[in-house]
Amino acid sequence: MFEMDLHPRLSETDGAGHIGNTVLVVWFEEARTPLYQIVMPELSMDTWSLILANYSVDFYAQIFYGTPVQLKTWIKRVGNSSFETYQEVSQNGKRCASGTSVQVYFNYQTGKSEPLPDNLKAGLTTHLLPPEEQA
Amino acid sequence: MFEMDLHPRLSETDGAGHIGNTVLVVWFEEARTPLYQIVMPELSMDTWSLILANYSVDFYAQIFYGTPVQLKTWIKRVGNSSFETYQEVSQNGKRCASGTSVQVYFNYQTGKSEPLPDNLKAGLTTHLLPPEEQA
Amino acid sequence: MFEMDLHPRLSETDGAGHIGNTVLVVWFEEARTPLYQIVMPELSMDTWSLILANYSVDFYAQIFYGTPVQLKTWIKRVGNSSFETYQEVSQNGKRCASGTSVQVYFNYQTGKSEPLPDNLKAGLTTHLLPPEEQA
Amino acid sequence: MFEMDLHPRLSETDGAGHIGNTVLVVWFEEARTPLYQIVMPELSMDTWSLILANYSVDFYAQIFYGTPVQLKTWIKRVGNSSFETYQEVSQNGKRCASGTSVQVYFNYQTGKSEPLPDNLKAGLTTHLLPPEEQA
Repeated sequence: MFEMDLHPRLSETDGAGHIGNTVLVVWFEEARTPLYQIVMPELSMDTWSLILANYSVDFYAQIFYGTPVQLKTWIKRVGNSSFETYQEVSQNGKRCASGTSVQVYFNYQTGKSEPLPDNLKAGLTTHLLPPEEQA
Repeated sequence: MFEMDLHPRLSETDGAGHIGNTVLVVWFEEARTPLYQIVMPELSMDTWSLILANYSVDFYAQIFYGTPVQLKTWIKRVGNSSFETYQEVSQNGKRCASGTSVQVYFNYQTGKSEPLPDNLKAGLTTHLLPPEEQA
Repeated sequence: MFEMDLHPRLSETDGAGHIGNTVLVVWFEEARTPLYQIVMPELSMDTWSLILANYSVDFYAQIFYGTPVQLKTWIKRVGNSSFETYQEVSQNGKRCASGTSVQVYFNYQTGKSEPLPDNLKAGLTTHLLPPEEQA
Repeated sequence: MFEMDLHPRLSETDGAGHIGNTVLVVWFEEARTPLYQIVMPELSMDTWSLILANYSVDFYAQIFYGTPVQLKTWIKRVGNSSFETYQEVSQNGKRCASGTSVQVYFNYQTGKSEPLPDNLKAGLTTHLLPPEEQA
């Protein structure tokens, strides 16, 4: 499991006085960076090899500016040519939102998905969400 | 059903050369504006009365800068204190992504959801996705 | 002079209840699209040939969600390898902000600026801000 | 002088393969947080008392995803009802951009600027850019 702290930005608040809902996919993507590094250690745009197939976010409580948030990231499932993530964001110890994403191993030259190499599958699998925590 | 055209912004592209995945929730939110106007005709931040409970987006094809996209918005379900939307975005006639969202009728003073008044339910219901198109 | 109308987005509001200041450079960039098309008619990321050297924005009045804004774009100056723009944004007939930008004709392969070809200079020059309106 | 490190986000890259120009005002605003805390220790949206009058950014070199950046923030000038900031962003030890902003002490109820109280002026003045570094 990967953890990171993050300070909500003033520009991420919205007119309702809280952090805007569209910001959550930005934060979750940033928190997936260690997973991206397993797949692409150099994190180079020229050799980027993942594409998003789905994301979904559930909102439980408002998040506010001025207090840091904690993000936790797990692998939920590793498939043949994709993997699924599960993530949570908390503020002041309260879980405020959770999200999933499906990342596909993708060849931008051919425009097609490809099987995940075994070493990448193994690297991702070490961060699996424990079965008892899976909803 | 509501339709709108939108020009992808240069700042919405990402290093992979296409429109970044986090942009989709921004576009879908903009395309829900006519639904927000049914609930809050004045669209004032001071009397905002919706909060998001969930969004989910499925990505089918890359979207590129330089060509407009078409967004379609339907109501999928009207509940007691919430409603669900279904939306699609196309470019060059090809469906590139679809998404759902759950919007809760919310009182920001009390921090609690409230039943949707009947006139708002009726207004929203006129934009229901035809049953045969529901997945 | 180029004009475009634009609907402020809910996600562009901030906690102070107005459109966030960081949004203005996004809008001004979108409004410069017709100028980009003079330089790069196909607007393709693969052959992008401009890079920003400076932007500056002056804020005169708050901009609010729920009412469209009008953007006007002029060329202020065409130089040897760059051009400068001047832009204004109004809401309800009131000028709310203005901005300038310096765009450099740039070769991303060599990492160096290049002289603007004469036909591009001529195309840009037809949109010059009248001298009497220059501050 | 305030320093902060920041990891460029994948969503902050653009189609040219580098960090998009519109991101810089977002980063500089985040890096001004310690100055905002001098003026508003609680950083609450309800009592927010600053408004932006101008920002300007000069771009010297491209910034790339995958390597952290360093941000430095100084006060450039403290006036009667406003203050000016000067900021720099570096990557791999190279200065990539610098920016200024003018922040006005503002009463959102009356819609008018107000004189900066002496204790706030004093707090801000301790972070003045040394005169020899002023351009």
